[in-house]
Amino acid sequence: MPPTLADVRAAHDRIRPFIHRTPVLTCSAVNALVEARVYFKCENFQKVGAFKIRGATNAVQSLSDAAAARGVVTHSSGNHAAALALAAHRRGIPAYIVMPSNAPPNKRAAVAGYGGTITFCEPTQTAREAACAELVRATGTTLVHPYDDETVIAGQGTAALELLEDVPDLDAILAPVGGGGLLSGTLIAAKGVRPDVRVIGCEPALADDAAASLREGRIVPARPPVTVADGLRTSLGEKTFPIIRELVETIALVDETEILAALRLILERMKVLVEPSSAVPLAALLNRPLNLTGKRVGIIVSGGNLDVSRLFPE
Amino acid sequence: MPPTLADVRAAHDRIRPFIHRTPVLTCSAVNALVEARVYFKCENFQKVGAFKIRGATNAVQSLSDAAAARGVVTHSSGNHAAALALAAHRRGIPAYIVMPSNAPPNKRAAVAGYGGTITFCEPTQTAREAACAELVRATGTTLVHPYDDETVIAGQGTAALELLEDVPDLDAILAPVGGGGLLSGTLIAAKGVRPDVRVIGCEPALADDAAASLREGRIVPARPPVTVADGLRTSLGEKTFPIIRELVETIALVDETEILAALRLILERMKVLVEPSSAVPLAALLNRPLNLTGKRVGIIVSGGNLDVSRLFPE
Repeated sequence: MPPTLADVRAAHDRIRPFIHRTPVLTCSAVNALVEARVYFKCENFQKVGAFKIRGATNAVQSLSDAAAARGVVTHSSGNHAAALALAAHRRGIPAYIVMPSNAPPNKRAAVAGYGGTITFCEPTQTAREAACAELVRATGTTLVHPYDDETVIAGQGTAALELLEDVPDLDAILAPVGGGGLLSGTLIAAKGVRPDVRVIGCEPALADDAAASLREGRIVPARPPVTVADGLRTSLGEKTFPIIRELVETIALVDETEILAALRLILERMKVLVEPSSAVPLAALLNRPLNLTGKRVGIIVSGGNLDVSRLFPE
Repeated sequence: MPPTLADVRAAHDRIRPFIHRTPVLTCSAVNALVEARVYFKCENFQKVGAFKIRGATNAVQSLSDAAAARGVVTHSSGNHAAALALAAHRRGIPAYIVMPSNAPPNKRAAVAGYGGTITFCEPTQTAREAACAELVRATGTTLVHPYDDETVIAGQGTAALELLEDVPDLDAILAPVGGGGLLSGTLIAAKGVRPDVRVIGCEPALADDAAASLREGRIVPARPPVTVADGLRTSLGEKTFPIIRELVETIALVDETEILAALRLILERMKVLVEPSSAVPLAALLNRPLNLTGKRVGIIVSGGNLDVSRLFPE
């Protein structure tokens, strides 16, 4: 059963002690450029620097004590890995993180810093899944998928819930779409609270699998990872796709240069660092005809985890 | 007469409609590093991206209608120029900004974007002051000095006033010092509200004129501008020096590499862009023995105006 608004509200009650209530920022310079009033829900200021702590915490806190004692496992080299490690740490249970052997040092350090146990594997999807399955078999640990999981989806929806508490009269909400956990959670929360609110998914044209999946009515796998928006390279899942297909208005596609220009605009005018994935919705608002002129538009800023060392050459 | 707490409170009432109430941010990673609880008063999110709009607005809004009609003038190539242009625009009066002929294009664009009238002069202090004096003589316009002005000082103090409203039980407040407008306003506000709060000025070792002035008991001119903290290259003024001398605990000096490391830390862990001047207090907290372990420390983050194009090579 897909999660409902009640599940999102229950998730919010469950995770509230463990997450930040992130601020909603506005910027008159951005408003002038897009000719709309934009409300940025800043999950880049969230614990672990991304919304992922919401779903991971909901998953971990939903476990029975017996299941929790056996820990949780996931395969990820991104924000979900750090989020699950921290969520498990807060409950005092083990987190096993399967990472590709070529995962960058800062990603490993983040997971290790939150107390996660890293298992390295070959950098292929098959090897990752096999390593996870082996850990589940050997230890009875619970797999927490990065997005194709009802408790994770319900947890991610809490960001939109908070946004609509703070700004109730939004005309539309824009969210990036990768595996679809954030977008499907946002859809359930937003459409549940305000059935007339428009929700638009935003995706790099170089990772247009969500748009293709909607067009073809089946999950079209993501192409090999090339977009700078590294959080959006994944394919939709069996659980996220039906929610998105039912509730989303459209998927807006943007080019790589548009993503980087939007990221720079946010940094330059708002003084806020976002990861490329988070710049995708503003890029869409700036460059695509979304019929939002004069409207009140919420944007879920998914995270702020960027390799800052690229900005500071030694 | 130096401004009093009552002047800062009056300034706050006067400027409130024209400024942002900026947020106070915290970061557990930073707290862990400095072993204290740090509260960042984020004036980088302020109008024009800096606290300077506070003093400029107080000066402009304090003018009589007759004086206001003749406009305001200043010589600056930095945040004060943009702030005065915007403050004048909000009152519907002219702003004349004297800028050196070699001022960078983005600084010119900011002033022009807020409706300021730019007069270019030779890039020397003498030429700047002469151009200002000529404008005052010819048009009867009012000079608004970037820092050595009571209404400006009172306006700058409103940032600390708000910080202490939000976090009343601070043990100390750290602020950068350039010309001393922010630090002297902070001292008047903070010591007025909470006589026992410690206030520490923070300054680049390469621009240690405030520390030298306190040591020698006279205004020691700033050395030629070399520090990366471009907002802190100016000398103390006749009005700011006595306030600082009377009320400040000490001036902490930091190195250039410490400033850049602190800027990077704020960007990486807090996802917030600050200008180098604003990283100076955190650099001091990280690297100097200020006896603040376990304490509650406020930092006035002065601004976020950085040439972002340096981070995005074409």
